[in-house]
Amino acid sequence: MNQEETTLVPRLVRESQSEATQLVLPNDTNTLGALLGGRLMHWIDLAGALAAHRHARAFVVTASIDHLDFLVPVQVGDVVILCSSVNRAFHTSMETGVKVWVENYMSGSRRHVSSAYLTFVAIDRYGRRVPVPPVTPETPEEKRRFEDAGRRREQRQAEAARKRTAGK
Amino acid sequence: MNQEETTLVPRLVRESQSEATQLVLPNDTNTLGALLGGRLMHWIDLAGALAAHRHARAFVVTASIDHLDFLVPVQVGDVVILCSSVNRAFHTSMETGVKVWVENYMSGSRRHVSSAYLTFVAIDRYGRRVPVPPVTPETPEEKRRFEDAGRRREQRQAEAARKRTAGK
Amino acid sequence: MNQEETTLVPRLVRESQSEATQLVLPNDTNTLGALLGGRLMHWIDLAGALAAHRHARAFVVTASIDHLDFLVPVQVGDVVILCSSVNRAFHTSMETGVKVWVENYMSGSRRHVSSAYLTFVAIDRYGRRVPVPPVTPETPEEKRRFEDAGRRREQRQAEAARKRTAGK
Amino acid sequence: MNQEETTLVPRLVRESQSEATQLVLPNDTNTLGALLGGRLMHWIDLAGALAAHRHARAFVVTASIDHLDFLVPVQVGDVVILCSSVNRAFHTSMETGVKVWVENYMSGSRRHVSSAYLTFVAIDRYGRRVPVPPVTPETPEEKRRFEDAGRRREQRQAEAARKRTAGK
Amino acid sequence: MNQEETTLVPRLVRESQSEATQLVLPNDTNTLGALLGGRLMHWIDLAGALAAHRHARAFVVTASIDHLDFLVPVQVGDVVILCSSVNRAFHTSMETGVKVWVENYMSGSRRHVSSAYLTFVAIDRYGRRVPVPPVTPETPEEKRRFEDAGRRREQRQAEAARKRTAGK
Amino acid sequence: MNQEETTLVPRLVRESQSEATQLVLPNDTNTLGALLGGRLMHWIDLAGALAAHRHARAFVVTASIDHLDFLVPVQVGDVVILCSSVNRAFHTSMETGVKVWVENYMSGSRRHVSSAYLTFVAIDRYGRRVPVPPVTPETPEEKRRFEDAGRRREQRQAEAARKRTAGK
Repeated sequence: MNQEETTLVPRLVRESQSEATQLVLPNDTNTLGALLGGRLMHWIDLAGALAAHRHARAFVVTASIDHLDFLVPVQVGDVVILCSSVNRAFHTSMETGVKVWVENYMSGSRRHVSSAYLTFVAIDRYGRRVPVPPVTPETPEEKRRFEDAGRRREQRQAEAARKRTAGK
Repeated sequence: MNQEETTLVPRLVRESQSEATQLVLPNDTNTLGALLGGRLMHWIDLAGALAAHRHARAFVVTASIDHLDFLVPVQVGDVVILCSSVNRAFHTSMETGVKVWVENYMSGSRRHVSSAYLTFVAIDRYGRRVPVPPVTPETPEEKRRFEDAGRRREQRQAEAARKRTAGK
Repeated sequence: MNQEETTLVPRLVRESQSEATQLVLPNDTNTLGALLGGRLMHWIDLAGALAAHRHARAFVVTASIDHLDFLVPVQVGDVVILCSSVNRAFHTSMETGVKVWVENYMSGSRRHVSSAYLTFVAIDRYGRRVPVPPVTPETPEEKRRFEDAGRRREQRQAEAARKRTAGK
Repeated sequence: MNQEETTLVPRLVRESQSEATQLVLPNDTNTLGALLGGRLMHWIDLAGALAAHRHARAFVVTASIDHLDFLVPVQVGDVVILCSSVNRAFHTSMETGVKVWVENYMSGSRRHVSSAYLTFVAIDRYGRRVPVPPVTPETPEEKRRFEDAGRRREQRQAEAARKRTAGK
Repeated sequence: MNQEETTLVPRLVRESQSEATQLVLPNDTNTLGALLGGRLMHWIDLAGALAAHRHARAFVVTASIDHLDFLVPVQVGDVVILCSSVNRAFHTSMETGVKVWVENYMSGSRRHVSSAYLTFVAIDRYGRRVPVPPVTPETPEEKRRFEDAGRRREQRQAEAARKRTAGK
Repeated sequence: MNQEETTLVPRLVRESQSEATQLVLPNDTNTLGALLGGRLMHWIDLAGALAAHRHARAFVVTASIDHLDFLVPVQVGDVVILCSSVNRAFHTSMETGVKVWVENYMSGSRRHVSSAYLTFVAIDRYGRRVPVPPVTPETPEEKRRFEDAGRRREQRQAEAARKRTAGK
């Protein structure tokens, strides 16, 4: 049986596309004025939840986040831009991609900080999982992400199985 | 002499266009779960500063904000979207427009919450005013806002003069 | 019919008078140590809500805020003093005035930062508007503010009507 | 030699008198909607620092706080009022009194929550202690507090000496 | 009758022992980068509540905190360690001890900042006091604290009685 | 040449071991009272940074975080315990393990929420990478983690190389 088989009307990727922008303030940074990694993760999670929320039109909770690199440092005063969308739905869960950019506050130049993949689960008021609509990818880029999301999901499940058998 | 006469290369409206999205969390709300007006004003100011920052590529400080109505209530769990851009520059200051929408977290429907006009001043590291590039409006909508910004500025200056002569 | 006609016992202006004091901390400021405009708006809204709360003895929500100038810059370490009171009640809404001062942390000198007029609406637990007591002004100053509040209300209503007919 | 002997011009109690008002928001409370004790202590410290700041016109740091009782519970939506003033100065330190009231948001009735005595030390930019002006009490109430502050200081010093000799 | 007489199974001190660690961030500090006294009190209250929570397995609210000295200054970037445990239970209340250390972020050296004694009351969902299990001290150190907690309680009650007869 | 070859004196795992405890407050949660995934990631990053800080005695910044599952939901009022230590050092970077537990606030039962592996880089005041001491594992458990950290590092480097050749 197909995991994505539901009676829900499919939604387009651009229906869940979200953009969030954050100005890095002193309290977001460490003693040297560098953005705290944990603050950025918090923003990534909110950006991902936003796209998942829009796709599922249900409450969503974070189930997992894939390996994350912070490629360039972010400083106080910089502008952080987070673009998110749902790549693919799997019955009651969704993979959301979040791409993070930093804009230097003087030069206006933009650099790639991180790319994150988060899995969200849709739930009702009582915490029970509820089905989410399938995703219909339109552009070649969206179709590539849709395929990749399937592969990443298999890897996650294989890794989870490996951990269970390995004890902890 | 023209207020906007500087040697700086003009920038397009879309170069300063910004979108910020906020998920309304319990701490943003009052006892009844309604978004605090002051929290929304804070988000409006940040969204406006973002556009001004991008246009001026300098530090910016808020000089004033025009009359603001909150047309529809916003609840905990709702998504607030703030779209901002610089309407026009006046030598060392800029008028920034911020349009606020709320997206219901279940229906996905979007309603207009507020439209704000803020004036920001560009400053250097020592707090001295610095010139900002002029704005080049492209679309009819941008041109209308450019004209309106000039009129609103005259009204603000007339009102300020009236207050000065009236004592306080 | 008189807008302010209710069976509620009127209250004096000094019954709603409130004073709030805030020490400007690093997180309230931008990279240059200047108070964020949005943080100050948040404090102004809280100070206004406090006076409205005390007058109405009901839940209150912000309906609008009039044009606001920030006359002098406020720095980290400064003390901000916010004095608020209800100027006049209009059946289920109230105009609240908030006057903002900054006290330099070394010289002790006090300067006027801003004067704000906010309109609050009184609501019950279910979000329905409820009537508020009329205001009885006592001093000449309070009487002047009471009259001005009436005039400002007419301007706001005229402006709102103008916007409605103008389309957006 | 007199501890309070400095060449600084004395200040009146009312020159340091401060009032701070806080609306209790959801994030200030525990799962049951009761104000967190630690949040209230934080507000007490800020209110005390404000008065000490105004008296000393120098940076101030908290050196100690006396035993504190929380006499009545405070709930989300309540208004907390904190009145503070410097009771007496001791060369480079000051005793500040903070009286805390809670105002029920419906009845408007006011109850006494706590009375706190904090000792602040005045320092310069490099963290070195600096002398503060003496306090001149005017009213009988201020004079009583001035005398009590002297007695409380002796008790604190006796207790500190007792702890030092007791080992820990 | 014995204050501690309940049918609840006693708990060991180490069952409530808690350790909390906080990295001092810019927003926790004043203009000079020194930790705010009120922020530290907030952390002390949370650390104490944690131990009381674990001992009582009920909601807990802060009833009082004893005299507190801040022995050494804490700076931005330092690590604060808070060790807490319940010293003794008195029917529906508990004395919790919190010992605070600061770890310099370069040398790794650890210094004693403060020792606090807080009284927490256990309550149910409706705010009514509920009994807590007695404490069984095991080590000589725990037994000493158990005895001291009894003496401190008598002093607090004597002091409270003195204040009541003295008027306020 | 050996990556870990420095003249720095090695440190033991237990010298960096840290425990942080957090009480889940309303503002840490979504509309349903469930802990926000991003808030937990922020706490995990702080806990990891603490251990890295203690091991390196230098400023540290987050370079990456491995795949993270959230195995059980965490609710408002729960206690979150985060145990962290440095598993292994690689010249100027370190792998830190953070294990997260949740303690139910009524039953006192403890469940495993997540296991995280973060890589931190040590830097000086000017943001330049500085060497960190090697880790000396003592117990069999520490030795296993030391070996695993080496393997995980190779996987991360292989994955990073794969991404570079794959274009984005």
